[in-house]
Amino acid sequence: MVNLELIRRIAQPSPTKIILLVIDGLGGLPDPHTGRTELETASTPNLDRLAARGICGLADIVGRGITPGSAPGHLALFGYDPLSCNIGRGVLEAVGIDFSLESGDVAARGNFCTVDKAGLVTDRRAGRISNDRCTELCHLLDEMVIEKVRLFVRPVREHRFIAVFRGEGLSSDVTNSDPQQTGVAPGAITALQPQASRMADIANRFMAQAKTVLAEQHPANMVLLRGFSQKPQFPTMGDIYKLKPAAIAVYPMYRGLARLVGMEILNTGPNIEDEFLTLKQNYAAYDFFFLHIKGTDSAGEDGDFDRKVRIIEELDQVLPNLIIIEPDVLIVTSDHSTPAVLRGHSWHPVPFLLCSEWCRPDRVSEFSESACVSGGLGRFPATEIMPLAMAHALKLAKFGA
Amino acid sequence: MVNLELIRRIAQPSPTKIILLVIDGLGGLPDPHTGRTELETASTPNLDRLAARGICGLADIVGRGITPGSAPGHLALFGYDPLSCNIGRGVLEAVGIDFSLESGDVAARGNFCTVDKAGLVTDRRAGRISNDRCTELCHLLDEMVIEKVRLFVRPVREHRFIAVFRGEGLSSDVTNSDPQQTGVAPGAITALQPQASRMADIANRFMAQAKTVLAEQHPANMVLLRGFSQKPQFPTMGDIYKLKPAAIAVYPMYRGLARLVGMEILNTGPNIEDEFLTLKQNYAAYDFFFLHIKGTDSAGEDGDFDRKVRIIEELDQVLPNLIIIEPDVLIVTSDHSTPAVLRGHSWHPVPFLLCSEWCRPDRVSEFSESACVSGGLGRFPATEIMPLAMAHALKLAKFGA
Repeated sequence: MVNLELIRRIAQPSPTKIILLVIDGLGGLPDPHTGRTELETASTPNLDRLAARGICGLADIVGRGITPGSAPGHLALFGYDPLSCNIGRGVLEAVGIDFSLESGDVAARGNFCTVDKAGLVTDRRAGRISNDRCTELCHLLDEMVIEKVRLFVRPVREHRFIAVFRGEGLSSDVTNSDPQQTGVAPGAITALQPQASRMADIANRFMAQAKTVLAEQHPANMVLLRGFSQKPQFPTMGDIYKLKPAAIAVYPMYRGLARLVGMEILNTGPNIEDEFLTLKQNYAAYDFFFLHIKGTDSAGEDGDFDRKVRIIEELDQVLPNLIIIEPDVLIVTSDHSTPAVLRGHSWHPVPFLLCSEWCRPDRVSEFSESACVSGGLGRFPATEIMPLAMAHALKLAKFGA
Repeated sequence: MVNLELIRRIAQPSPTKIILLVIDGLGGLPDPHTGRTELETASTPNLDRLAARGICGLADIVGRGITPGSAPGHLALFGYDPLSCNIGRGVLEAVGIDFSLESGDVAARGNFCTVDKAGLVTDRRAGRISNDRCTELCHLLDEMVIEKVRLFVRPVREHRFIAVFRGEGLSSDVTNSDPQQTGVAPGAITALQPQASRMADIANRFMAQAKTVLAEQHPANMVLLRGFSQKPQFPTMGDIYKLKPAAIAVYPMYRGLARLVGMEILNTGPNIEDEFLTLKQNYAAYDFFFLHIKGTDSAGEDGDFDRKVRIIEELDQVLPNLIIIEPDVLIVTSDHSTPAVLRGHSWHPVPFLLCSEWCRPDRVSEFSESACVSGGLGRFPATEIMPLAMAHALKLAKFGA
């Protein structure tokens, strides 16, 4: 298996440009009535033309049978081994709301919860309070300072929030306070390593203050914390690939993931056309673009086969705006499948196409799951997508003499 | 590569059921006259229908070019890395005759051999004595007790037997007594670790006693021991996959292998129909069934192309008894190829099909080696069969957020 260390050694800068278009949750399963997947149902003349010009395949994101979450899905697309490159829950939630984590920060995922008079948890989600209510409660806890450690408490959605601890000498090696069940009190946070005792102490004092501050609130009168974590120390894409990479994504989670691997985040509008326009306007300034399309995944999660088909067709219609830019390498693929019939992410491999002057075209002339089976790239691990992109952009030197 | 530790973390129990039908040695090579393999020659309408409904591929059991024995073949099918999960020769022979090994037992593979008056080995197999003769000689040595260590000496086949040492503090870390050549004396067994010195001592005393007991026998007047080993400490399938697995197999070797990974063994009759009936009768009590069909391998080993074709056709005829049960996941594959033209196991990948409501069907409509090449699963390592089975039975949680 090709690894990042090898790629780092042979990567070389060049003026060529790569576009990685990620259609979230693109892969699907057949509609039982027609036998055709969402992508096979959609009319996609432009994607089909690209498939005919380029080389196709099916990519396994984590491994056969493994359903990837969004984080491992994107890490794999960016070339990082999703099994060894782990992102803690707190960090993931923080990057998911565009919170700018500094190195040394410890982030935890929080729940507003309900406790009874004895302090026992009666509802871990406080009846899933509204986003607005969550924001109000976060304001009550935000910007606290405990022993020179500054706290940021920010709403995520419903009962979910993040607590970020910023100060000297913090460690994420502490236990959760979330007991993951009702009828018991929130657990004391304890250090798993001696050097984490300060963190545990501060987190417990935050819990105690939250209890006081929220005492008269209803139904959310307490907090639970879990997934304490720090920003992972991944090598950046600039470091590995000698690229200047930029990300264009509407949803904060994907901007956050891109930021973790060192991409610059470009502001964009809410539609696919906006994203394509952003790319065009910034084309001169970067040599790698990660373009993220979210609607397909949301439609799949909602079990809405027809909406997923429509979004694929919409994308196909505006695709000429991207094709006309003539990038040296254009890749169209996905971070995982989200079949509408399963209403969620799935383990099925994702369709993949790569267009470049230097690809060896295969006989596939249609961009679909069943056509990609016969593609020239065969079935392959998603961590090999970046080496393929780099090679076709003539950005990798020969290995060995 | 996805590993068992990951699968253990994301495996979750569910009411769905998996059937793994292993047609031993199914893969073949073409008859030089017709150009068709055994499976391609056989008329198999039911397997073909399953292939059309499901997803197909070719599985490599150990690796390209590597011919698997039965043990690595089955370990790979059960999801265990056949290269790191080693089963010692003594243990394998013991499970192969349904000997119930206890933990702490040390098993060795034995040969009855011929030595001359000087004690030098003249025939390592004592002229391949008959099974009956082997049984008689084993009776002479069985149930000995040496320093509180109890010995079990049981016939395998021809000159082969097993010696199992049962007692406190035994270790398998000792050398062989089998010199693997003639003209020399059987070697003294020596400890490879200090804690194995008791084992070496007892094994040498057993050798000495065997020499006395067998002195007047002809031509088998001595024994050779090798492959001292203990029951491996694999995690069970229940532990890894949260399954309640059962095995249905006519031959003891396969029941033994299934037992080593924690399956319950169901009693069954000698025919394929008996095995299918056993499955039907026990369907409610388990959620994973390993069903083993032996005849195809034996026919291949005998070089009997036509018999192998007939057995495949017989299986296909009774297959509706299995299909009608409607398992959530039905897999048909093999532990290795046994082409009749090679008269033995071979390295060729095995045809594989998986049927499930949640599989993404491919364009394969025939179950054969040449059709499976174009299957949606492509060519893949057999250790990924269990993750695929688990995923399609909706028994694996999402990996990562």
